[in-house]
Amino acid sequence: MKALVYHGPGEKAWEEVPEPTIEDPNDVIVKIDTTTICGSDLHILKGDVPTVEKGRILGHEGVGTVVAVGSGVAKFKVGHRVVINCITTCGTCAYCRVGHPSHCESAGGVGWLLGHLVDGTQAEYVRIPFGETSLHSIPQGLTDEEVIFVSDIIPTGYEMGVLNGQVKPGDDVVVIGAGPVGLAAMVTAQLKSPRRIIAVDLDDFRLAQAVKNFGANRTVNSGQPGWIDQVKALCRHGGADVVMEAVGIPPTLEAAFELVRPTGRIANIGVHGAPVTMPIDRLWIENITMTMGLVDAVTAPMLIELIEAGRLNVRPLATHRFKLDDMMAAYDVFGHAAKNDALKVVIQA
Amino acid sequence: MKALVYHGPGEKAWEEVPEPTIEDPNDVIVKIDTTTICGSDLHILKGDVPTVEKGRILGHEGVGTVVAVGSGVAKFKVGHRVVINCITTCGTCAYCRVGHPSHCESAGGVGWLLGHLVDGTQAEYVRIPFGETSLHSIPQGLTDEEVIFVSDIIPTGYEMGVLNGQVKPGDDVVVIGAGPVGLAAMVTAQLKSPRRIIAVDLDDFRLAQAVKNFGANRTVNSGQPGWIDQVKALCRHGGADVVMEAVGIPPTLEAAFELVRPTGRIANIGVHGAPVTMPIDRLWIENITMTMGLVDAVTAPMLIELIEAGRLNVRPLATHRFKLDDMMAAYDVFGHAAKNDALKVVIQA
Amino acid sequence: MKALVYHGPGEKAWEEVPEPTIEDPNDVIVKIDTTTICGSDLHILKGDVPTVEKGRILGHEGVGTVVAVGSGVAKFKVGHRVVINCITTCGTCAYCRVGHPSHCESAGGVGWLLGHLVDGTQAEYVRIPFGETSLHSIPQGLTDEEVIFVSDIIPTGYEMGVLNGQVKPGDDVVVIGAGPVGLAAMVTAQLKSPRRIIAVDLDDFRLAQAVKNFGANRTVNSGQPGWIDQVKALCRHGGADVVMEAVGIPPTLEAAFELVRPTGRIANIGVHGAPVTMPIDRLWIENITMTMGLVDAVTAPMLIELIEAGRLNVRPLATHRFKLDDMMAAYDVFGHAAKNDALKVVIQA
Amino acid sequence: MKALVYHGPGEKAWEEVPEPTIEDPNDVIVKIDTTTICGSDLHILKGDVPTVEKGRILGHEGVGTVVAVGSGVAKFKVGHRVVINCITTCGTCAYCRVGHPSHCESAGGVGWLLGHLVDGTQAEYVRIPFGETSLHSIPQGLTDEEVIFVSDIIPTGYEMGVLNGQVKPGDDVVVIGAGPVGLAAMVTAQLKSPRRIIAVDLDDFRLAQAVKNFGANRTVNSGQPGWIDQVKALCRHGGADVVMEAVGIPPTLEAAFELVRPTGRIANIGVHGAPVTMPIDRLWIENITMTMGLVDAVTAPMLIELIEAGRLNVRPLATHRFKLDDMMAAYDVFGHAAKNDALKVVIQA
Repeated sequence: MKALVYHGPGEKAWEEVPEPTIEDPNDVIVKIDTTTICGSDLHILKGDVPTVEKGRILGHEGVGTVVAVGSGVAKFKVGHRVVINCITTCGTCAYCRVGHPSHCESAGGVGWLLGHLVDGTQAEYVRIPFGETSLHSIPQGLTDEEVIFVSDIIPTGYEMGVLNGQVKPGDDVVVIGAGPVGLAAMVTAQLKSPRRIIAVDLDDFRLAQAVKNFGANRTVNSGQPGWIDQVKALCRHGGADVVMEAVGIPPTLEAAFELVRPTGRIANIGVHGAPVTMPIDRLWIENITMTMGLVDAVTAPMLIELIEAGRLNVRPLATHRFKLDDMMAAYDVFGHAAKNDALKVVIQA
Repeated sequence: MKALVYHGPGEKAWEEVPEPTIEDPNDVIVKIDTTTICGSDLHILKGDVPTVEKGRILGHEGVGTVVAVGSGVAKFKVGHRVVINCITTCGTCAYCRVGHPSHCESAGGVGWLLGHLVDGTQAEYVRIPFGETSLHSIPQGLTDEEVIFVSDIIPTGYEMGVLNGQVKPGDDVVVIGAGPVGLAAMVTAQLKSPRRIIAVDLDDFRLAQAVKNFGANRTVNSGQPGWIDQVKALCRHGGADVVMEAVGIPPTLEAAFELVRPTGRIANIGVHGAPVTMPIDRLWIENITMTMGLVDAVTAPMLIELIEAGRLNVRPLATHRFKLDDMMAAYDVFGHAAKNDALKVVIQA
Repeated sequence: MKALVYHGPGEKAWEEVPEPTIEDPNDVIVKIDTTTICGSDLHILKGDVPTVEKGRILGHEGVGTVVAVGSGVAKFKVGHRVVINCITTCGTCAYCRVGHPSHCESAGGVGWLLGHLVDGTQAEYVRIPFGETSLHSIPQGLTDEEVIFVSDIIPTGYEMGVLNGQVKPGDDVVVIGAGPVGLAAMVTAQLKSPRRIIAVDLDDFRLAQAVKNFGANRTVNSGQPGWIDQVKALCRHGGADVVMEAVGIPPTLEAAFELVRPTGRIANIGVHGAPVTMPIDRLWIENITMTMGLVDAVTAPMLIELIEAGRLNVRPLATHRFKLDDMMAAYDVFGHAAKNDALKVVIQA
Repeated sequence: MKALVYHGPGEKAWEEVPEPTIEDPNDVIVKIDTTTICGSDLHILKGDVPTVEKGRILGHEGVGTVVAVGSGVAKFKVGHRVVINCITTCGTCAYCRVGHPSHCESAGGVGWLLGHLVDGTQAEYVRIPFGETSLHSIPQGLTDEEVIFVSDIIPTGYEMGVLNGQVKPGDDVVVIGAGPVGLAAMVTAQLKSPRRIIAVDLDDFRLAQAVKNFGANRTVNSGQPGWIDQVKALCRHGGADVVMEAVGIPPTLEAAFELVRPTGRIANIGVHGAPVTMPIDRLWIENITMTMGLVDAVTAPMLIELIEAGRLNVRPLATHRFKLDDMMAAYDVFGHAAKNDALKVVIQA
């Protein structure tokens, strides 16, 4: 089969590799119908994730069809259409049993296996370990594009942003970063009925998208001087009840420390590569809570139900479409997302 | 009357001042029967708290007897014995109504008024603004020493440490700092039945106290090389479910970042004077929660009930006793607490 | 002034009475601009509420203008436009301080004073005890009709239905009773993004209203045979995640016992006059939670903010309008609400 | 092997039956080292549980040693000592994944399989379906008797009583029924530091046991006239914050409706055979919450850790000891528990 293989920093190829086979009774083999590319795939290609070995097939998101199941798998049969959970979930370890497969012990302490420690979804076929608990059925009538983003970024925005941030009716919510994950946080923040969702980004296209399709009702371009005060002025208590950081660099997290009101919450969603200076000398008295983490994706079944019920629409994330064999072109577009006005690229078999 | 008056950095005096009078219908005048000194009083004297003006009477903790009430006060009468809440609580502003008088709007946004923005409790008499909601009745049969620490450090340890840290049955809890506030966190952490309470400090006297009187069942002296690994080895999941920082300097908070397990909580209790470096590049994936804040003291009535019921004993915090007229000597002893094997000094009329 | 006075079961009059005056430092006198009639007013008139004495002015809902304040009131001034909280809230007793003014000790253990134990709002003027904590400011630009229902039924539906029922994203919610309170529960249930809101009633006009204006997306007429199975068939797990009872008679509460799924919640909102048979022999194994209670109305400020932000629209509850002097006619219409296709009547000065 | 076989109402025998074998890749075969008898076994023998077929081996509690594992089981090996969870837990269905294996879909909607729908633990060997998620490792150094009650009644008391009842520091807790489950609720209620645990029963031996070994600090014999008022007088707010019903008959649940204070919780633990009359006409205004359910036993691992740490001692539940071959005698003693001053009987291989 063909797959996108990582060959070390800056090196990748869409090339012929062996098809995966059942290795464990809990395995499921899925034929990929639709996949996508994540910002963390780009990080890997930059060499930022040394745990990824050369020869690894990338990708941890996908929709597909079951083509083989191990002897221990009862819930899925050949022919089932499924969403692949980005987090591999054994379901039996101490972390999985309390809803934190992000730290699944069976997966070695980090539930992110696909496209990281085992071969991933940017391929014609993928082997899913612990398939029974790491795949989700797709209700009849839903298209691949309607559910593909439930693999990762929709639960990431919802769990790491909205739930960790404890968004509740009436809150003023600021989301710093209107890339795909930030937009996912905005579109799911609406589920909790905040008073305002204020989108912050340097890119006016993304800010416009935030309002048009993802529930933001105010925007501030953070390239302007005084932007922090502008954001504060939009909040009824002089600061945000919840600030979500969806970029992953020190200046945006430091801005979150400025923007949060006393008793507010900072929910970090971004993947960071450098430490940050926390002004604890000012914040210790502010009664704030800060959270951070890798998605568990345990809310994926509920999110699929809301999509089916017409209460959540995440399709506008898909701005560009490719065929599997155009994987390299898809990477080119997503790798220069801003220039291409791209949010997420959808890649179909 | 006599009172301990701040005259600028390094300057204080026990001197004659006018007695307080009712200024507002919600005021209560309390004759001080017992008071104490807090670490923040020492900070003020170092000049670290510029919002304190010269001439201010210090102190925000105390037990006393009501001697006068304003026309708007119905709950307390002359002769009532009361614990003074360190946080002035109007009861009607948006913060007070959701349980956060730490940011009471009627108090100007910070509920810490006594001995800070208005005259405090290290005096023969004190005026308590919003007395109806800022004083607590003392049940019959309880001595001053049994309840004086409910003014501040017991709720501080419980709310900022135990409740913010979400301590639950079976947790491994690490408390860095076995001074009065750290010990208050330990003694109240027991209320949630953790598996272990691990006390960390540089002072062996305090560590011994932690075990003898405050519920710690393991201790580690942080002056030893490898102490962080020693603490981790005492935790069943390779790190603490909850780390409480009760010192207030960067190295101890940075140690907390090391000690917490994935999905754990860091509860900052310390008062910090410098920023800290947060290794968000390592922690973003760890699903941890960090909290910080000024005490609200809304749990004070419940804590008094547990003391009355014999379920909580905080008297061992009192290691030294003085008369009001020996206030300067009390400051001397508390100012060199380690040398004197002192935890809290109790000062009685 | 004129007021609606209760003269015993079946007897009421719109008649001349003395104007209220400040009796306590915490009192506020409000000139009524808009008031309304509640189902409990009808109960009083039937003689169902023996604690109401003859001579009592009825009414516990209203929007008005402050015309006098007691010496202890700082937050409101003459001229302020306010919503009257149906629950009088002292703000200082043990119940008020934990968010349950429904049992305010200063109000004698039941926070419902207005139109019950003290004179109420169906009058030209009303005295509001504990005015500082029992009135809410109205933001500029909002009309009386937009906020009048925040006095009572909107927080009743939200707190006793939505919050007690723990409605969360993806839930199937059944509301039995599409009268004003049931509709209030539906319109506020939307704030939590359930999968479905299923309205149940005997009246097709009300069911149509539920869909048109209050967020229901399925309806079942409970006059049909087999209606319980019809409701269950609309729920994805064979029963409701949350059932709200908004009628107040045994058959509807017994239906709730049938409709709830294992691990679901029953939130009673109805005011009941008779005991109910609970099939605990069948339910003990079902892991359900049942709640009940009088509204606290502590969410009123947040609900007003959502109305101001355009995120909550409760105006469609107002179906009929009267002037104060037509109070008797308003009672006639509301007393035969079904015949008149009436939801709530709005009565303006 | 020998086993206790149900032969219809009133009929049981300790007789020779075939040994169990692996039937499914997820099965584990456990050699029983220690088992016990539950009140529900007596119910089955009375014919109260028609879903139990003739020929069924009874028992759902036990400690044993793994002797065989299916091909899908990785966590347990032959020789492992384990506690058997009374609730069979597939770990993958929608109920299991949110912590409610009590309604495990793989187990047909009710997680209670052992000694109910499949053969149970009162035998020399037992087959445990979904063994990986339905067994718990026993830490070195713990005896069978120290952990056997974690199979069922300790988590039943903790989850259905303490957690459902939301016991928190300072609460007044009333437990009606001081049989094994009621005592389990008391001993685990201590983990939450209530102000008082008030035990209620007709049997003075059990009341004495409650105080001596299970944490109760007040007792009331419910055979006395006026006992309800006696209990109320022991509560600081005129009623209980939490009432746990651990009997299972209408009069005791009706007493709970009397004893709970406004804003309190009623946690039903008892297994009921008849409906109850709920005075909703009085309770609707009381802001109470009532819960009920079958145990999930998801807290078993944590409870075992607290036992290992010496923070929880449940051994005093074992009052009588038998060998497996004396099973019939064990039933005789437990069947007349009151006459024999028996709490739980322990039956060892």
